[in-house]
Amino acid sequence: MNSQEVRIFETKERILANNDKAAALVRERMDDKKCLFINLMSSPGAGKTTTIVKTLEELGKVRPGVRTGVMEADVDSDVDARTVAGAGAEAIQLHTGGSCHMDADMTWRGLTQMKPEGLDLIILENVGNLVCPAEFDVGADFRVMILSVPEGDDKPLKYPLMFTVSDVLLVNKTDTASIFDFDFDALERRVHALNPDMKIFPVCAKSGEGFAPWIAWLAEKLDKKCGK
Amino acid sequence: MNSQEVRIFETKERILANNDKAAALVRERMDDKKCLFINLMSSPGAGKTTTIVKTLEELGKVRPGVRTGVMEADVDSDVDARTVAGAGAEAIQLHTGGSCHMDADMTWRGLTQMKPEGLDLIILENVGNLVCPAEFDVGADFRVMILSVPEGDDKPLKYPLMFTVSDVLLVNKTDTASIFDFDFDALERRVHALNPDMKIFPVCAKSGEGFAPWIAWLAEKLDKKCGK
Repeated sequence: MNSQEVRIFETKERILANNDKAAALVRERMDDKKCLFINLMSSPGAGKTTTIVKTLEELGKVRPGVRTGVMEADVDSDVDARTVAGAGAEAIQLHTGGSCHMDADMTWRGLTQMKPEGLDLIILENVGNLVCPAEFDVGADFRVMILSVPEGDDKPLKYPLMFTVSDVLLVNKTDTASIFDFDFDALERRVHALNPDMKIFPVCAKSGEGFAPWIAWLAEKLDKKCGK
Repeated sequence: MNSQEVRIFETKERILANNDKAAALVRERMDDKKCLFINLMSSPGAGKTTTIVKTLEELGKVRPGVRTGVMEADVDSDVDARTVAGAGAEAIQLHTGGSCHMDADMTWRGLTQMKPEGLDLIILENVGNLVCPAEFDVGADFRVMILSVPEGDDKPLKYPLMFTVSDVLLVNKTDTASIFDFDFDALERRVHALNPDMKIFPVCAKSGEGFAPWIAWLAEKLDKKCGK
């Protein structure tokens, strides 16, 4: 490394260390408030917003009265917050001002605005990006990632950190699996080689197909966190 | 902004300014060597590698004997370089070591390894990411981005910088347009609102459908740069 590279590397290490401290604080505060906090990540266009809308709809059936909020992080637009609000959820938009990921400080500012003490579940829709959001812990209880079938079953080989740090993988757009020659067995092998504990749920967010096991997982974590 | 945010902002501004200088130098050197240099960017799974393989195949038909090289930038794997090398192109793999984008210095190290004085065209397959690679000029003659149909026609609203800085948009996987309710007119309106000069070519990299106008554009730029 030349001296400029060393400087950039050290700056990044310092930023990540500071972020880890801030994330631990977010987690502690959200524990106090008994509010489950999920960090949802994926590539652009993998179906984060559609998945959130369908998840809230299906969760409402098994846990009626659950109080939910959604934070939509976007480089620069309000498209998703409008969609989610249209589905009846409380939603706020967080503009990252060009940044490619949310960090724990930005997240905490969003959370205080949402008032988590009055909510059971908050979902953060992170910036569409498989690289940087994997590095920045935002203090969520769980990291959930979406891989959509059209992206291909080889993505764990190319973006390993995201698959390593996430707890749950939703494989979305399963209705297109035959068109894209998607190999679920190969995907599972590649994912579990990186992260043996990762839960994998194949889903179709448009139709709701395959949502039951994912909703059951979420409801269980919700019950445990909210102590209901 | 608090003092930490100001520091991060200033660091980033300095990094980008240094990168711009390095990119200008890359461009100057590649002009001397009369080698056309393309920076290809997209989300993960939009079809960069398949598009490169098909592009080299089709370009070879209209410009037989064209000498091409491909640099595959990846966070951490050799999958793409093997694919491209299998298609008969000269290919090298550049590991970004976790970085979410290529910068001009990393690019120049790759280019010198490729020996551009013996080539007519070099394509850089950037890291799959619609955010950070848009900010880092690598010194290419043209920036070409791929948007795949399954990602949706709303992406210019959500990742505006990438659409603003790119010269060409390849809309890939057009064979799936009816399945995903993709609105080409809406996309074109959104793209040209950001960047009126952007060339848009709908293509299907798997079948080669729609490649003729894109290959004609590329051949024209190649003739101009190489002075043939």
